[in-house]
Amino acid sequence: MKTRGYAVQSPKSRLAPYDFDRRELRFNDVAIEILYCGVCHSDLHQARNDWGWSNYPLVPGHEIVGRVIDVAPQVKHYKVGDHVAVGCMVDSCMVCDQCRKGLEQLCREGNTQTYCGFDRITNEPTKGGYSKHIVVREDFVLRVPDGLALSRVAPLLCAGITTYSPLRTWNIGPGSRVGVIGLGGLGHMAVKLASALGASVTVVSRTPEKAVDAKELGADALLLSTDSAAMEKAASGFDLIIDTIPVRHDLNPYLPLLDVDGTIVLVGQVGPLAEPTTVPLIVGRRRIAGSPIGGIPETQELLDFCGRKNILPDCEMIRMDQINEAWERMERADVRYRFVIDMASLEVPA
Amino acid sequence: MKTRGYAVQSPKSRLAPYDFDRRELRFNDVAIEILYCGVCHSDLHQARNDWGWSNYPLVPGHEIVGRVIDVAPQVKHYKVGDHVAVGCMVDSCMVCDQCRKGLEQLCREGNTQTYCGFDRITNEPTKGGYSKHIVVREDFVLRVPDGLALSRVAPLLCAGITTYSPLRTWNIGPGSRVGVIGLGGLGHMAVKLASALGASVTVVSRTPEKAVDAKELGADALLLSTDSAAMEKAASGFDLIIDTIPVRHDLNPYLPLLDVDGTIVLVGQVGPLAEPTTVPLIVGRRRIAGSPIGGIPETQELLDFCGRKNILPDCEMIRMDQINEAWERMERADVRYRFVIDMASLEVPA
Repeated sequence: MKTRGYAVQSPKSRLAPYDFDRRELRFNDVAIEILYCGVCHSDLHQARNDWGWSNYPLVPGHEIVGRVIDVAPQVKHYKVGDHVAVGCMVDSCMVCDQCRKGLEQLCREGNTQTYCGFDRITNEPTKGGYSKHIVVREDFVLRVPDGLALSRVAPLLCAGITTYSPLRTWNIGPGSRVGVIGLGGLGHMAVKLASALGASVTVVSRTPEKAVDAKELGADALLLSTDSAAMEKAASGFDLIIDTIPVRHDLNPYLPLLDVDGTIVLVGQVGPLAEPTTVPLIVGRRRIAGSPIGGIPETQELLDFCGRKNILPDCEMIRMDQINEAWERMERADVRYRFVIDMASLEVPA
Repeated sequence: MKTRGYAVQSPKSRLAPYDFDRRELRFNDVAIEILYCGVCHSDLHQARNDWGWSNYPLVPGHEIVGRVIDVAPQVKHYKVGDHVAVGCMVDSCMVCDQCRKGLEQLCREGNTQTYCGFDRITNEPTKGGYSKHIVVREDFVLRVPDGLALSRVAPLLCAGITTYSPLRTWNIGPGSRVGVIGLGGLGHMAVKLASALGASVTVVSRTPEKAVDAKELGADALLLSTDSAAMEKAASGFDLIIDTIPVRHDLNPYLPLLDVDGTIVLVGQVGPLAEPTTVPLIVGRRRIAGSPIGGIPETQELLDFCGRKNILPDCEMIRMDQINEAWERMERADVRYRFVIDMASLEVPA
């Protein structure tokens, strides 16, 4: 199928229109017309090859919402017209212990990323959701619950699940004390989701002006990280801290905030951590962990949870041709809280 | 009570005989004649004020085994003649949530360390087990089970509990895959204890010659950390790694060894970690944690466990006047695996 997307041709080029083919349906494939695609900070990292495994032309986008336009004969769960979603992965081995547990994000062979990955059958580079269409194996397609505003669902597929999964892994619920560092795309979802799960939520920020937003999003408090007296008073006050900062940073100010057996989960920064000291880890049996997106069953659980609770990201809608400007603004953290591309703004030439 | 110990008078001085008084018994105190005291690497760190909170004259020693020579009227559980032990702490608040859970090592007010601490009532500096006598609150005195060779029990009180506690916290048992980094005082106990708990145990070392010792201690295998092919093959193979290295080191070679949700527990190094990368944490949901000694009930559990299984540290007995030489050898890791001071070698002048 012919389609059009936006691609970067090299680590230094800007996004520009790019025509390419999506594969013909395999026996278990679903063809999707993409209606909306979220804009994630990792799109920018990958476009610039910050992590060293990019391939070009690179069509970013892994927060995909659309409508089924075709299904292969063996597809069981979707039909033309269904509203569906695709997240950060489009395949995995499906037979290893992790896949069998529904933890495809932790597949022993590595999952196939929605873009910058390689198709497991043809080895062709995968291309993401900054495009008009996508073809995805049924098992990696998710159902969007009725009633959720379709234009705001997309960021749940990465920002949402990346913060929901650790909340579930660490059993967050009523009585839990959750801190959130970084109030961007991931952070604002962490606040909404932790709050909806019944936890007490504190945004930890160096910007006092964020207090209003934090409360509007559902946080109980803002802890000013530059206020050393407040930070000291808050010591040992959190069971889980979700750290969404996407750039190199120092964990040492935050580690003492964890209670005994508490964990700081890194979901944003990929790369070396600035020398954490072991002292708060040892004296308080504290923990540092990482967490990658979530599995397919957990992502569906998240969508259904958001459907029941009507939880949606705060989005700013853009046209496809505004994407370069949106990336510049995202780098300056000038977005509340996630850009979503309205794919109706992109025409595929006949 | 007049007693004699060995003390350092400043961060740069050597250990030398030092006469001082132990307090008169308070209502809940036990007076102990020290028979044996283990030599811990932290004794050396503290003597040199490496951690910045030392006070002088400093009498080190927190692996204490002895005989009860007097008890206060309200002491319930010990009588003159009992064989007892004292570890790294001699008091705590006893009323906070952690103390009530038997986690006195994590007391909200901080526990009182056996040396370099301050008595909670008089604020006098505490002095440790490199001495002929000690007076300790009953609640921090442990019972040495009958049948264990008394001369080899002392290292259980720090090296033993420091490795036993994380094994218990992370539920190690039959089927668990445990790695041990660093085959010194702590490491050799980690191997013995993890093995006795039924785990499969691998020593991770850069020294192939340690394979024989590792197996003798109960390990199933030695993984050579300098063999990159072997390290790659061992990836994702451990549920828990106990890292006993007492100096600054790089975790990055070890993190990929952890399986999904696996944890590396730091029990040796106090200070900044050389920049761990978040990649293995995030892609494998791996974890870095610390753990401090153990609580009083858990330490008694360890002593009883070792009593039932006849597990004892490998010790080299020294006289008190050999301590400076022993510290020099300990710094060169020239000890298998723990020095124990035979306190009969020290006379208290009349």
